[in-house]
Amino acid sequence: MSDDSQIIQAIESVQALSPYIPGKPVEELERELGIQNIVKLASNENPLGPSPKVIEAIRQALPELTRYPDGSAFRLKAKLAEQLNIKSSQITLGNGSNDVLELIARAFLNKNDEVIFSQHAFAVYPIVTQAVGAKAVVTPALNWGHDLDAMEAAITNKTKLIFIANPNNPTGTWLSKGELKAFLKQVPKHIIVVLDEAYAEYVNQENYPDGVRIHKRFENVIITRTFSKAYGLASLRVGYSISTSHIADFLNRVRQPFNVNSLALTAAEAALDDTDYLEKSIEANDSGKSQIKKALKEMNVNYISSMGNFLCVEFKGRAKFVNDELLKMGVIVRPIANYEMPDHLRVTIGTQQENEKFIQCIKQILEIK
Amino acid sequence: MSDDSQIIQAIESVQALSPYIPGKPVEELERELGIQNIVKLASNENPLGPSPKVIEAIRQALPELTRYPDGSAFRLKAKLAEQLNIKSSQITLGNGSNDVLELIARAFLNKNDEVIFSQHAFAVYPIVTQAVGAKAVVTPALNWGHDLDAMEAAITNKTKLIFIANPNNPTGTWLSKGELKAFLKQVPKHIIVVLDEAYAEYVNQENYPDGVRIHKRFENVIITRTFSKAYGLASLRVGYSISTSHIADFLNRVRQPFNVNSLALTAAEAALDDTDYLEKSIEANDSGKSQIKKALKEMNVNYISSMGNFLCVEFKGRAKFVNDELLKMGVIVRPIANYEMPDHLRVTIGTQQENEKFIQCIKQILEIK
Repeated sequence: MSDDSQIIQAIESVQALSPYIPGKPVEELERELGIQNIVKLASNENPLGPSPKVIEAIRQALPELTRYPDGSAFRLKAKLAEQLNIKSSQITLGNGSNDVLELIARAFLNKNDEVIFSQHAFAVYPIVTQAVGAKAVVTPALNWGHDLDAMEAAITNKTKLIFIANPNNPTGTWLSKGELKAFLKQVPKHIIVVLDEAYAEYVNQENYPDGVRIHKRFENVIITRTFSKAYGLASLRVGYSISTSHIADFLNRVRQPFNVNSLALTAAEAALDDTDYLEKSIEANDSGKSQIKKALKEMNVNYISSMGNFLCVEFKGRAKFVNDELLKMGVIVRPIANYEMPDHLRVTIGTQQENEKFIQCIKQILEIK
Repeated sequence: MSDDSQIIQAIESVQALSPYIPGKPVEELERELGIQNIVKLASNENPLGPSPKVIEAIRQALPELTRYPDGSAFRLKAKLAEQLNIKSSQITLGNGSNDVLELIARAFLNKNDEVIFSQHAFAVYPIVTQAVGAKAVVTPALNWGHDLDAMEAAITNKTKLIFIANPNNPTGTWLSKGELKAFLKQVPKHIIVVLDEAYAEYVNQENYPDGVRIHKRFENVIITRTFSKAYGLASLRVGYSISTSHIADFLNRVRQPFNVNSLALTAAEAALDDTDYLEKSIEANDSGKSQIKKALKEMNVNYISSMGNFLCVEFKGRAKFVNDELLKMGVIVRPIANYEMPDHLRVTIGTQQENEKFIQCIKQILEIK
């Protein structure tokens, strides 16, 4: 077919862009594989199902569907500001934290600026960097986690931004308060450090740093968080950043006025109030992670110690085979070869029943009696 | 207060950016003005309230809130493709058509590329142009509408993109099939023409061009549409573009994988099925527009002939006064001085009762007996 539009080309940085490949929804996989009752442990989703308070809040909001969202998100920002003891003007809301990460790149990165992040770090960092034509500087990982010394050594006079995920997805590795502070002291103040805390709620370590306090000490740090994980709102896309008001002002200039939709705003407000749900999510994650870890140990299968709601499990040379077999059995996990981890599969902590299914399938695939 | 982050500056194009100022939600205005029962005719929202089929579809989807959206929007795109007789691969979904307009700018505009649009055209065009550091070339309006001759004359070898709104917001002016085709024939094929049809459903003119057919003839044309107006889903942010698959591929590279959330996808599917609601919306708009026009004529108040769900009403030298008085009476319309139309107010067609309230308030303010 002739296509006159072939002479139209995207800008150079976009031509080189490979979009993020999301996990497939259950529905699509059932369609593809022709099977039902799939167990999806592929997208680090909250296995508890939604908070009843969130459901109720959404129901209440349905009569207003024809109205535009509150572009300033007055209520949600006020509630967040109160809980976090910061000002509303320090918050920038995103359509998921993906959106916030992109806003940061678009607001602050010129073409050819350097952006530092670690090997095995979240896949959105290279994408938002590439999209604006900035240069990714990837430092080798240390024990699957961020090597802060290497990251510090990578700083040049072209460095504009550093992404740090704490804990990191997909590895689940984390940085302590001491490590992080020592690093931040070495970072020049004109460089933005994004501290991505998408999985922060799940961390149960005493010396895990509180991003808000880190930000108060280091004002070049932008904290990003999400309602997609422990708050159980992945479907609705709400994330936010905490920064100085000065930085938030720039982010809000590139933010689309209605980037977070009305039901998402309503749901996030209700989720913040439902502390029971949050606690249950964290407990379920702890016990589910123990369940899977115990079984893996019994099978002599290695995994990376994780502070997230997922585990990277090692299947030396056989990860693709294991993944294919799991799929046939109706269990979806995440292959992470694209994270330079071809020997690992990332499994999300599910319900007890889902975890058990995963364990039994692994046993069967590895022919463990 | 000291703020170390002051040394961090956004990139040049973002520093110069003034964000879109959305209409305030009723709730915020009631808070500010200390009054209740406000009539909001400020944001071109559908006055009918949501489709019951949409509400029901959302209720059905609530148990899946913890799951990520279908990033490929398989079902919605299939349904749209079928209705429009195009391929799914030609569709790019946006978080409202605002998102699609931004994706186009980010995918195709280099710094200093020229972008042509008309005076009084939709405010998002200059914003997305400025955000990427491209150069806005604004041509003077002709009778409040697009002057296609002037736009054609403005094309240079730096022109990369032309925005045309048909009908235009805020003026409601429109271009006929003949005018548009004659223009497109003169536009070199390497220049993208965005034909923004956010209000297309409301147009009842025989020689109004069907964007899809225009696109089939001119493959450098990208059509943008929205579910925010006639489909009544402003709260949920769903828009889309129709282009060649070649162009859609680039747009999808810069698109965030989950830019449209799950309930928005679900709602848009249901809205496409509810043809009754769409018809009622159009009928209500026609009769409401007649109601307001008739009253304005009786008052000898001028307005711009409009094909949208809104009217620009002229209050020579008194628009600010009229707006202030309307606010005191609890009626919100949209001042459009920022569109270089300081003498006009844009009023959205509301329900019969809302329109009547607007008319009576205008009568009172203008002291018409």
